[in-house]
Amino acid sequence: MTIRTLFVANRGEIAVRIIRAAQELGIRTVQAVSAADQDMLAARLADEVIELGPAPARRSYLDTAAVLAALRRCGADALHPGYGFLSENADFAEAVEASGVVFVGPRPETIRSMGDKAHARACAVAAGVPIVPGSQGRIEDVDAALSEASRIGYPVMIKAAAGGGGRGIRVARDADELLKLVPQAASEALAGFGDGGLYLEAFIEDARHIEVQVLGDGTSVVHLFERECSLQRRRQKVWEEAPASLLPGDLREELCKSAVRLAQAVRYRGAGTLEYLYDRRRQAFYFIEMNTRIQVEHPVTEMVTGVDLIREMLLIAGGVPLRHRQEDIHCRGHAIEVRINAEDPARGFLPSPGRIEELAVPGGPGVRFDTGAYPGYQVPPYYDSLIGKLVVWGEDRPHALGRLARSLDELRIGPLATTIAMHSELALADDVRSGEVSTSWLERWLTPPSAGRSDAA
Amino acid sequence: MTIRTLFVANRGEIAVRIIRAAQELGIRTVQAVSAADQDMLAARLADEVIELGPAPARRSYLDTAAVLAALRRCGADALHPGYGFLSENADFAEAVEASGVVFVGPRPETIRSMGDKAHARACAVAAGVPIVPGSQGRIEDVDAALSEASRIGYPVMIKAAAGGGGRGIRVARDADELLKLVPQAASEALAGFGDGGLYLEAFIEDARHIEVQVLGDGTSVVHLFERECSLQRRRQKVWEEAPASLLPGDLREELCKSAVRLAQAVRYRGAGTLEYLYDRRRQAFYFIEMNTRIQVEHPVTEMVTGVDLIREMLLIAGGVPLRHRQEDIHCRGHAIEVRINAEDPARGFLPSPGRIEELAVPGGPGVRFDTGAYPGYQVPPYYDSLIGKLVVWGEDRPHALGRLARSLDELRIGPLATTIAMHSELALADDVRSGEVSTSWLERWLTPPSAGRSDAA
Repeated sequence: MTIRTLFVANRGEIAVRIIRAAQELGIRTVQAVSAADQDMLAARLADEVIELGPAPARRSYLDTAAVLAALRRCGADALHPGYGFLSENADFAEAVEASGVVFVGPRPETIRSMGDKAHARACAVAAGVPIVPGSQGRIEDVDAALSEASRIGYPVMIKAAAGGGGRGIRVARDADELLKLVPQAASEALAGFGDGGLYLEAFIEDARHIEVQVLGDGTSVVHLFERECSLQRRRQKVWEEAPASLLPGDLREELCKSAVRLAQAVRYRGAGTLEYLYDRRRQAFYFIEMNTRIQVEHPVTEMVTGVDLIREMLLIAGGVPLRHRQEDIHCRGHAIEVRINAEDPARGFLPSPGRIEELAVPGGPGVRFDTGAYPGYQVPPYYDSLIGKLVVWGEDRPHALGRLARSLDELRIGPLATTIAMHSELALADDVRSGEVSTSWLERWLTPPSAGRSDAA
Repeated sequence: MTIRTLFVANRGEIAVRIIRAAQELGIRTVQAVSAADQDMLAARLADEVIELGPAPARRSYLDTAAVLAALRRCGADALHPGYGFLSENADFAEAVEASGVVFVGPRPETIRSMGDKAHARACAVAAGVPIVPGSQGRIEDVDAALSEASRIGYPVMIKAAAGGGGRGIRVARDADELLKLVPQAASEALAGFGDGGLYLEAFIEDARHIEVQVLGDGTSVVHLFERECSLQRRRQKVWEEAPASLLPGDLREELCKSAVRLAQAVRYRGAGTLEYLYDRRRQAFYFIEMNTRIQVEHPVTEMVTGVDLIREMLLIAGGVPLRHRQEDIHCRGHAIEVRINAEDPARGFLPSPGRIEELAVPGGPGVRFDTGAYPGYQVPPYYDSLIGKLVVWGEDRPHALGRLARSLDELRIGPLATTIAMHSELALADDVRSGEVSTSWLERWLTPPSAGRSDAA
């Protein structure tokens, strides 16, 4: 089947991104909106707009019944879930497909099996993909946690089996901490994900976050090389690159092949990302989880490979077999994405919603700005604070860094407090320029030097 | 030497383009402006602004003495001329270099020798590059014109030896027309270029305009493949693509090699373009002229090759040898540029200067908009009407066409009359989609069907 009408079950920049890809394929679009999002850019670009419910996400974008009712009402033949919200909800995907609508993503059973992080790790092991040393499946009680932790070796991370996106993760450096943190983590996991299951993993210090993009059609799988997302704050990525810095060529090849092996094992359909930690000292990588959806940082992969991932998702969902052979996918140059959030770094990243009076977007070669905003747009206070993604491409990493600095200088989103200036500083930071970063680097960089320093009065 | 401060001797989008490339290399910029251009985007982005003189170009951008005085005043160590204005004025380039400032472009003698179109054709012949059958050098009088024309065969084009950019060209279909047009062309050439010299060329009907981009460092030369610019109105390009459509692979290779041969023969330095006519029926290409400067349509080449041409021009001018080997330059996908002019197609393309109240620029993957404008910018009435270039890239030509149509739908430059809607129609036209166009196609397409058709009243 070919998709004729696509229901966009998301908001912000990713909704705009999906609409654009659909329009380029001649697909009609229906944009689902909350009451607070009637004026967002995606609603202006879509062919039709349908309201889901009130502003809070749980009463609109996360309200399965409301989304399904809207979907039935508008007669779309496919639904794109974007990222976040219902994108990794297997029950929802199942309900969509049960109503005869194509879910643009993997089969519900793939979402479910990869969504159980303990099960995903077991699949990785079966496919010969290295994982971070960790507990055998879920830990059943505190005693099991203690014995598993001493087998793995401290420090260990306590993670929610049903979690994702860095939420609900704790680090225990010894048995005392573990005893204290396990019950907290279990009750938080129960509250947050409706599932109190936990598992443990060795905590790798100064780890680098590297992930591999794959595309599958349910039969064949190809990889589109890796991204590095080591610059994180509170386990949220803020700066992403492709390819990864300081990853030797042979390891890179091994890494990408391992991702294809695992995705093949689950006969993966659509766009997916396999996340790894890379331990540079040990020259080893470990699979941590798979995200069965498009990711925020997908544009860096598009910039270096030339493959439009959302377009491919739509084509695959429409029944077109994978159009790219592995040997035809090449990585050219270097791309960097920085997340522009409506947050004030000087005030602990306090969200700063409000009306955008001025929006000056940088241009020129190798520059892309994905946003759901426009001049006069009111950033609502109900959702995450991402207002745009600045993505640059250069022939090599120094070229991309120079272009990033130049583009950030041109970008103006007045009068909101944003992370633009922070990224300008990051682009000049020695460690960033040399690539000597890890997932804990940014938080250290953001922490002011400890008191006690005193300049001559 | 490395360039530290660059003087930008141009305006509009190309000045912005040059400033961005300079900034990415850490080069300080001084923007030269006329009194009417104090508020243009380039003036806002540059580190320093220097006024040349009153609005009319002949009293500012074309006033050699004023430009040289400003250049001396600001202490820049290099000058980028952009396109048009003084970019192909050999005397100016000579004066710039005589004052100890690097002219970002070829050596003055190259500008001079290629600027004489008759001489350029002779160089082509010497380098084994086919040329359109034409007169042996300049025609000295009407009698010589008549005998040369009958040798070449009608129709013939009468061209100014010192001309360029399509100006001052006439077509004579027989001897009577030739007798009438030669004196007109000579006096116009004298008035326009200070040189009444003319030459003749066979007029190829339904010719396609194809040109090859080259880069040289004075020693080595590489090509960056070809562009097709067959869609023209009054001999001005309005739509450009890379690569050319319907050009067989072997001819393409031959074409690009011939361009390198000619550029090598003159030990070319900087970015240059060799323009050809392609006769599809005869499967032959003919060199027509070389432009010894960057061209308006250079972004399509950047999109398919990933090479930043302005950056390379600056590096070469700074003494860096050519950084690309021919075998490292690849053409990926397909790019299209459309020129967005402040002109009203419904009123004979009447220029429509004025204040831009709304500027909505399309985004997403593979889309670039180069402009010297911004919301609130007043398009002045003194210069050409180009306000922006929309450039799209796709994996193949149909993908690029779909992306172009989508991007044009998003582009809003209110309330000015522009060529946006015309390009949207062109993107859907059958001949454009199939690639069956020539340099005369657009004018035919723009001409309303002859009168006499009458709908039922």
